[in-house]
Amino acid sequence: MSLRELLGVDFPLVAFSHCRDVVAAVTNAGGFGVLGAQTFTPEQLDQELTWIDEHVGGRPYGADVIIPTSYASGPELVVPAGHRAFVADLLAAHGIDLTVDDALLAGRPTVREGLGEELLDVVFDHPVRLVANALGVPPPSMIRRAKATGVPVAALVGSREHALAQVRAGVDVVVAQGTEAGGHTGEVSTMVLVPEVVEAVAPVPVLAAGGIVTGRQVAAAVALGAAGAWTGSVWLTTREAGLPASTVRKLLAASSRDTVRSTARTGKPARQLASAWTSAWSTGPAALPMPVQGLLAEPVLRRLDTLADKGNEEAMALVTYFVGQGVGLMNAVAPAAEVVRAMAEDYLAATERLAGAS
Amino acid sequence: MSLRELLGVDFPLVAFSHCRDVVAAVTNAGGFGVLGAQTFTPEQLDQELTWIDEHVGGRPYGADVIIPTSYASGPELVVPAGHRAFVADLLAAHGIDLTVDDALLAGRPTVREGLGEELLDVVFDHPVRLVANALGVPPPSMIRRAKATGVPVAALVGSREHALAQVRAGVDVVVAQGTEAGGHTGEVSTMVLVPEVVEAVAPVPVLAAGGIVTGRQVAAAVALGAAGAWTGSVWLTTREAGLPASTVRKLLAASSRDTVRSTARTGKPARQLASAWTSAWSTGPAALPMPVQGLLAEPVLRRLDTLADKGNEEAMALVTYFVGQGVGLMNAVAPAAEVVRAMAEDYLAATERLAGAS
Repeated sequence: MSLRELLGVDFPLVAFSHCRDVVAAVTNAGGFGVLGAQTFTPEQLDQELTWIDEHVGGRPYGADVIIPTSYASGPELVVPAGHRAFVADLLAAHGIDLTVDDALLAGRPTVREGLGEELLDVVFDHPVRLVANALGVPPPSMIRRAKATGVPVAALVGSREHALAQVRAGVDVVVAQGTEAGGHTGEVSTMVLVPEVVEAVAPVPVLAAGGIVTGRQVAAAVALGAAGAWTGSVWLTTREAGLPASTVRKLLAASSRDTVRSTARTGKPARQLASAWTSAWSTGPAALPMPVQGLLAEPVLRRLDTLADKGNEEAMALVTYFVGQGVGLMNAVAPAAEVVRAMAEDYLAATERLAGAS
Repeated sequence: MSLRELLGVDFPLVAFSHCRDVVAAVTNAGGFGVLGAQTFTPEQLDQELTWIDEHVGGRPYGADVIIPTSYASGPELVVPAGHRAFVADLLAAHGIDLTVDDALLAGRPTVREGLGEELLDVVFDHPVRLVANALGVPPPSMIRRAKATGVPVAALVGSREHALAQVRAGVDVVVAQGTEAGGHTGEVSTMVLVPEVVEAVAPVPVLAAGGIVTGRQVAAAVALGAAGAWTGSVWLTTREAGLPASTVRKLLAASSRDTVRSTARTGKPARQLASAWTSAWSTGPAALPMPVQGLLAEPVLRRLDTLADKGNEEAMALVTYFVGQGVGLMNAVAPAAEVVRAMAEDYLAATERLAGAS
């Protein structure tokens, strides 16, 4: 089955976002929105998906859940004193008045084992047309439940070898994500990875991800053999996304050279805005394993977001955000539907340019 | 003027090679060969270009010269004792019997000031249709002489800012080279860099470089707005290239994850096969500035090539070669003309796939 048939869309554009408004807007504009479910509790997720159901009139959308194959737990989840001290010193050096204590770290995201499965319960209670796993091979339960309900399963990969492992595990759609992508990412570029993965997993459909923020890049992805594009960064500066104003300002100002692949936020290499935070960790202690680094980093970075939004320049220098190199091509805030339309037009223009050139 | 008119070719494929046989074969097959002139003396270069003239029957080709804006000279060209000792220890640890002394280092490539201009004298004595500068902004003399003889000037860039500087200097064709490329390279991927540079320098034509070893990738480059592709790595495993058998074996076996951007060979970040050599330098002393690192590295690596070719496994582990991530898609030795034909067919198939998809 072609990807268009599989997902029920005309324009092969998948939009990943943590914001329900973006997901609904993209789906309503003819693309395919995917909600990042991981930051919600099961109750919150049910509210978000219910809201989407009420706003898309039956048009297709999906959800993305991270279910790691293994998870640290118990005493391993303690943040070592040395790492706390490193962050405390870093904040002090920037004149930020914030105590790195248990109270602050208690504001950490929920990472308990079993959460992924509970989120999946919620996802399958809604009429999703795709369920994705953003990190590693989906657990057998996810694939089994998806197949039982007839929902295709997608998984993100950064190498040919991982793509083959995903297909062996039963994945229906492979997202080949190049190193230029925001978030967790490998080292091979989109230009090379996509044809490699397409050849390796054919006839399984492949979505190209990594650096794609314009329609001409979606066309390039299709020329490379992909069935369409999986995008994330480009939605961050849409009107609906509602990021802190300080973050939006940083994103709009950033060039393609202003990102870095760093372990400083989650413990695994993830591309994000280069900042005083990522730079300090690049010469600081080794990042903690996932998810412990996040237990330390996330509460601090959230407080810094708030301070930056209030005009604190030092906090502004420290804040970061997961985003790909495509940020260099993101220069204005626009409604998500307008971005979809502009990408579709640019895609067609690129297709015609290519047809005219040959 | 369009790139096709500028270069006089139908298929927008530029092939960079240090081997005259590859240059002539690509040009004769309908592409555009560019000879890397830098490793020759002026006398040798004249022989090479004369041979090409005799074999291409007036079809278009070009030459690439590296003229750095500044060059270390005199006492700065001495390799420090500590770095020599590091290499001596590394070789000893691998059981390689090779003394890192003045006699060995005397086999270093010629790097004297003024060589670039002398090479240019030779280049302009031949009917080249393009002259390229692979590193930095071409000196005013190069641009002046090229314009006087009506030869377009190309320059390689790894960022939008460098592209703008090149156009200000008078360059006629910008080669936007992504981080996945072999050799000296920046950090921005081809997928992002090409549309950035195209937009920045329009209407100056842009060639896309970095990871491109198949026709579908040339099509993707054109979809991104490029006038064509600049390729290098893919010609290394052609029959004509004549690389050491051990190197060819390593290239064919390498996956896209087997390259690294390292300063261990020239002193500037250059993508090459990851090997015991690049890995040792990644935790060793800081690389020396260009061209001093090369004075130390090149004579040693050449001896290791010879040993590897004789079956020395430890030398095989150490040898490296400038190549891009596209090496993962290079899996067989073929004549260069056949590679051009396969790329042209694959380009057309991708164009049709894209037309069919929209």
